Amino acid sequence: MAVFENLLVIGTGLIGSSLARAAKKHSAAHNIWVADKSEVVVERVKALGFADKVSTDLTALAAEADLVILATPPGVMAKVAGQILPVMKTGAILSDVGSIKNDIATSILPLVPEGIGFVPGHPIAGTEKSGPDAGFAELFEERWCVLTPQSPTDFGVEKVKAFWEALGSQVAIMEPERHDLVLATTSHVPHLIAYTLVGTAIDMETVTNNEVVKYSAGGFRDFTRIAASDPAMWRDVCLQNREGVLEVVDRFIEDLTALKRAIRWGQGDVLYEQFTRTRDIRRRIIDAGQDTSEADFGRREADED
Amino acid sequence: MAVFENLLVIGTGLIGSSLARAAKKHSAAHNIWVADKSEVVVERVKALGFADKVSTDLTALAAEADLVILATPPGVMAKVAGQILPVMKTGAILSDVGSIKNDIATSILPLVPEGIGFVPGHPIAGTEKSGPDAGFAELFEERWCVLTPQSPTDFGVEKVKAFWEALGSQVAIMEPERHDLVLATTSHVPHLIAYTLVGTAIDMETVTNNEVVKYSAGGFRDFTRIAASDPAMWRDVCLQNREGVLEVVDRFIEDLTALKRAIRWGQGDVLYEQFTRTRDIRRRIIDAGQDTSEADFGRREADED
Repeated sequence: MAVFENLLVIGTGLIGSSLARAAKKHSAAHNIWVADKSEVVVERVKALGFADKVSTDLTALAAEADLVILATPPGVMAKVAGQILPVMKTGAILSDVGSIKNDIATSILPLVPEGIGFVPGHPIAGTEKSGPDAGFAELFEERWCVLTPQSPTDFGVEKVKAFWEALGSQVAIMEPERHDLVLATTSHVPHLIAYTLVGTAIDMETVTNNEVVKYSAGGFRDFTRIAASDPAMWRDVCLQNREGVLEVVDRFIEDLTALKRAIRWGQGDVLYEQFTRTRDIRRRIIDAGQDTSEADFGRREADED
Repeated sequence: MAVFENLLVIGTGLIGSSLARAAKKHSAAHNIWVADKSEVVVERVKALGFADKVSTDLTALAAEADLVILATPPGVMAKVAGQILPVMKTGAILSDVGSIKNDIATSILPLVPEGIGFVPGHPIAGTEKSGPDAGFAELFEERWCVLTPQSPTDFGVEKVKAFWEALGSQVAIMEPERHDLVLATTSHVPHLIAYTLVGTAIDMETVTNNEVVKYSAGGFRDFTRIAASDPAMWRDVCLQNREGVLEVVDRFIEDLTALKRAIRWGQGDVLYEQFTRTRDIRRRIIDAGQDTSEADFGRREADED
């Protein structure tokens, strides 16, 4: 059942193109439109065929849309919002999929005219792939989408919630500041750490790249997967959630330094205790359906790519 | 084609039980024997049926074996070697699967009598699961096994190499010190970091456990998988490869501190450059067959576990 008449998704990377595909699969909107600033991307999206209209002309499509979702890199969302908000219809809703919420919401909010709903959102889902070919309609199924409106009773919140539920997601409503601190822990800092460790390995002059590649199956390869994520997006995330990221990174460095000291002093009991208490949370993530316990992620199957 | 007549695997965790299963599947030895100090585990292994003989009596089986592979936690390998070496047959070979090589090799080498081959080894393969039920025969296929003999011409090296190749592995020969530094980078420090980050998340008093679990799909869940690995084994690895681990951790903390500073000072170009150069190595790991590029590791498929 269509929640909206005309949906416009701006930006067709992994999330934007998955969103359009998911809306089509679940008939969450009657008309699914996509805009991207790149002519090349627009041609590619036409070929992929998951949108009813595709254009580089944001404002022409935005003027007719009932729901506009920003799916550009987070750093340009406020700029794009400033271009389209003046032409949007009264009663239309603006949302986004940015991984940080406080910075985006505070920069867009002053631009929103009377009569337009503004419902910031963040689907907690993704892969390390980028671009319109990387998207798939099932990305949001059984995943959480967090909405961070000024108030849960704001105009548009119920409809945007219904839209995400139509795509198979569960919806949570949170304060933007709290969202940013939780996500710094569960997403932003994990990405920063993965990028850092892969960089450290590249720099180890004693380790030729070929050895790192050859013996990557012992844990490193999982970090390289995360560190293959879109660099522009993660740069913006780190800068726009500076406070949350720095707080969690500082705690992490303290904790790592304490374990380093335990290793230096041969305190096996400290290590054992730390390595034991982390198992329970894994169990609960699997129980909550947010990961699979399949051995080795099915990596045993060869993948030719 | 059987490379050995009688194979004894001591310890039946993930690696030991996979090894026995793989040797059976590929007929790499005529008789596949398994020893474990735990009566409960011995009963379980009998029920699982992947070994021709199972016993708690290490020395009785070791006295008849042509190849003995230590697959206990690394911290007790030297002790177990001390028990079995005096009873082993002349011409028999002792090997192991420990994730650190220098410490194990130097502690066992003085115990090895004339006429016994000693070929330390390390298969670079694993999952986060533990125990005899977690093993599977394909674990070592298309993975590397590193051997670190005193000299590549040592007695037993060729046969142990042929044994691992029979299981589907590729074999590399390295100096133990170099092995430990390479693996500190590609395995030991990634595990230490994952354990640390999961601990940091548990401690964040602002983050209830339930939120961490709920929103884990943004990167954190990959860390929890690694941090669910066997605590006793990883404690031993950190203590026994202290030098290699501390060197790589120190470099990592320096690099993370530099990125933290870039975030604090809003240096987007520094972040972008770092986040870009890590992509290439991912590509090469996939090309080398050490990981799959399948989106989201097939996590889209539900797993009931």
